[in-house]
Amino acid sequence: MFQVNENYLKLPGSYLFSTIGKKVKAYSEANPDKTIIRLGIGDVTQPLAPAIIEAMHKAVDEMGRAETFHGYAPDLGYEFLRTTIAKQDYQDRGCHIEADEIFISDGAKSDCGNMQEVFAADSCIAVCDPVYPVYVDSNVMAGRTGEYDETTGTWSNVIYMPCTAENGFAPKLPEETPDLIYLCVPNNPTGTTLTRDQLKVWVDYANKVGAVILYDAAYEAYIAQEDVPHSIFEIEGARTCAIEFRSFSKNAGFTGVRLGFAVVPKDLKCGDVMVHSLWARRHGTKFNGAPYIIQKAAMAVYSQEGKAQIQEQVAYYMRNARVIYDGLKVAGYEVYGGVNAPYIWLKVPEGMTSWDFFDYLLEKAGVVGTPGSGFGPSGEGYFRLTAFGTYENTVAALERIRGL
Amino acid sequence: MFQVNENYLKLPGSYLFSTIGKKVKAYSEANPDKTIIRLGIGDVTQPLAPAIIEAMHKAVDEMGRAETFHGYAPDLGYEFLRTTIAKQDYQDRGCHIEADEIFISDGAKSDCGNMQEVFAADSCIAVCDPVYPVYVDSNVMAGRTGEYDETTGTWSNVIYMPCTAENGFAPKLPEETPDLIYLCVPNNPTGTTLTRDQLKVWVDYANKVGAVILYDAAYEAYIAQEDVPHSIFEIEGARTCAIEFRSFSKNAGFTGVRLGFAVVPKDLKCGDVMVHSLWARRHGTKFNGAPYIIQKAAMAVYSQEGKAQIQEQVAYYMRNARVIYDGLKVAGYEVYGGVNAPYIWLKVPEGMTSWDFFDYLLEKAGVVGTPGSGFGPSGEGYFRLTAFGTYENTVAALERIRGL
Repeated sequence: MFQVNENYLKLPGSYLFSTIGKKVKAYSEANPDKTIIRLGIGDVTQPLAPAIIEAMHKAVDEMGRAETFHGYAPDLGYEFLRTTIAKQDYQDRGCHIEADEIFISDGAKSDCGNMQEVFAADSCIAVCDPVYPVYVDSNVMAGRTGEYDETTGTWSNVIYMPCTAENGFAPKLPEETPDLIYLCVPNNPTGTTLTRDQLKVWVDYANKVGAVILYDAAYEAYIAQEDVPHSIFEIEGARTCAIEFRSFSKNAGFTGVRLGFAVVPKDLKCGDVMVHSLWARRHGTKFNGAPYIIQKAAMAVYSQEGKAQIQEQVAYYMRNARVIYDGLKVAGYEVYGGVNAPYIWLKVPEGMTSWDFFDYLLEKAGVVGTPGSGFGPSGEGYFRLTAFGTYENTVAALERIRGL
Repeated sequence: MFQVNENYLKLPGSYLFSTIGKKVKAYSEANPDKTIIRLGIGDVTQPLAPAIIEAMHKAVDEMGRAETFHGYAPDLGYEFLRTTIAKQDYQDRGCHIEADEIFISDGAKSDCGNMQEVFAADSCIAVCDPVYPVYVDSNVMAGRTGEYDETTGTWSNVIYMPCTAENGFAPKLPEETPDLIYLCVPNNPTGTTLTRDQLKVWVDYANKVGAVILYDAAYEAYIAQEDVPHSIFEIEGARTCAIEFRSFSKNAGFTGVRLGFAVVPKDLKCGDVMVHSLWARRHGTKFNGAPYIIQKAAMAVYSQEGKAQIQEQVAYYMRNARVIYDGLKVAGYEVYGGVNAPYIWLKVPEGMTSWDFFDYLLEKAGVVGTPGSGFGPSGEGYFRLTAFGTYENTVAALERIRGL
């Protein structure tokens, strides 16, 4: 009789967004006259930029003619896109990354979830707390995380690195030595970042103990401050200890288009084995390339016209971030993030839990956010609002909050 | 110090298509005046049908306007597509499959490669020999296959089920009991199929021993004969023992567009655990939905207009298959497949290996095919030609072969 992967059964239900959904539904039904403003989910609302739309139409037409039809794409991505990324995102910033170290995929979520697979089954992982749930969950499925403690909401074999107001949301180097360290910078959910000097400490540490940093830079486009690096490969030594994940979801609105990439430098080795070779093999075996049309859309993101248009989009969301940040400050909240990231992280009023505040904000202001405890135990007492709504809704939401 | 997944290191190099590439390159350089006809790779050559192109343009336009923009798709696929598939591919054929048993993905290769993950690490797999390499390779990566024997080209913990002319390319029930049985019908590479009665034997066997059949039906659209089922769910009892993989690559030319789906019936259970729940959890954790534009393209495949257009495309390729089949017969070869599949499988002349015949065909006729031994040890002595070329090239190739 066949058996299932029992590690899957250890996963607690993913109640966060379903619980939010249920509470919002109940509120709507009880208050049919009230409009709800949703600043909970990290999904974009602005349409794709004109340069991207134009590139896609052109690519669709190519697919309709025999002479320009494209069948299977190269597993690792089209050369035209890999070269452009290597140049514009890395070489132009002084990072030594070659085109053949870029692996195009259907999104950073897939890459973040799948990358653990090329490492040993008994690898020890370290994560920031709070954190994007995919890092831990994908390792649970692979059997690396030990047992779940429902009381603390933690796994026995995971090193948690609390990121709270007390340490300025900068994780401390762990006492136990991890094999894999997940860092998300700018951070989801806290919206905070690490400076170049802070990140250098991590690169040096990883090289010293022989750990790999899995660096999720999905929100890189929102970085505004000079001393915050856009890539871990801006830091000397990163080529021997880091993998970087990038996404087109948030800089260019590709959440429903799906494209991302991983950067795996050839200098990242275990003995003689390049992690690069293993990831290439995984890509070749379990993936069949990203769509031609969508790789062409990504090329538009790097065009002069496209760059100008997506910068406007990022600016639009960052204006929202400022509205939220300033509005909360005026309303007397302790507020973090929102400067180099589209997420605003606030401390809930004394005596309330994250979920208490969720209920309070929904009932009193008709505004939906995300309780910080949903991202990990150290998220308790915090709350996330996102800048991805429309400007009008964002302004209205903050007016309501300030009026409480 | 971090360690890699050592199972990856056990994989032999994937020399098949790179060796073919090198040989073709060497021949071209030595014979610059000769034109080469490629009937080796299973990639389509006809452009996307007009109804699909139109649907994509429309969806691209929707993505460019705020009112019709689509962000994150549902992880498991849009309801409109799941409902259409359930009705047209299953319910209209009398199969009991519900929309929520359909999981939309970026292609059957991903699904075939990833599905093993929801089963126990010590599951025993059975595969047909010869076979599409992804089934075995993805299990090697997961550590299920034991050790590789270079002499025989087999893994110690894999049950191989030879499919040769001697048994009419129909695998025999294995003596050892497997947990997971991979069946690809119509078959890649042999182009052969199983009748309804033959498949019923497998379904009954799987239910009896408690095995799961992983049924790859990527070539379903090419089935011409009445007694060959289009889905394993046409067979009574399949809901408790089977998962089906489907692709839009070969029926609608989506090799470079990327879309497929897996059907996981809720009756497939290990104790109380539905495999359906585990696959849903995997999808939700390591995948972020297929692009809206491409799910809309798939909807066109099911429209009246689209159906007529893709039927023409399938007929086009099947005319090629007939040209190859008949041409080889006239030339005196033993030929199989090509009736319900776009692949033609031929026996190479006595005294030659598959690679000898590859060299012979390339040097004497300038035609590229795929040596059968590349698909597994029982493929030795056979050779694959594909019907996915243009009609003109296919006719020319067969004229050359007949002239040898």
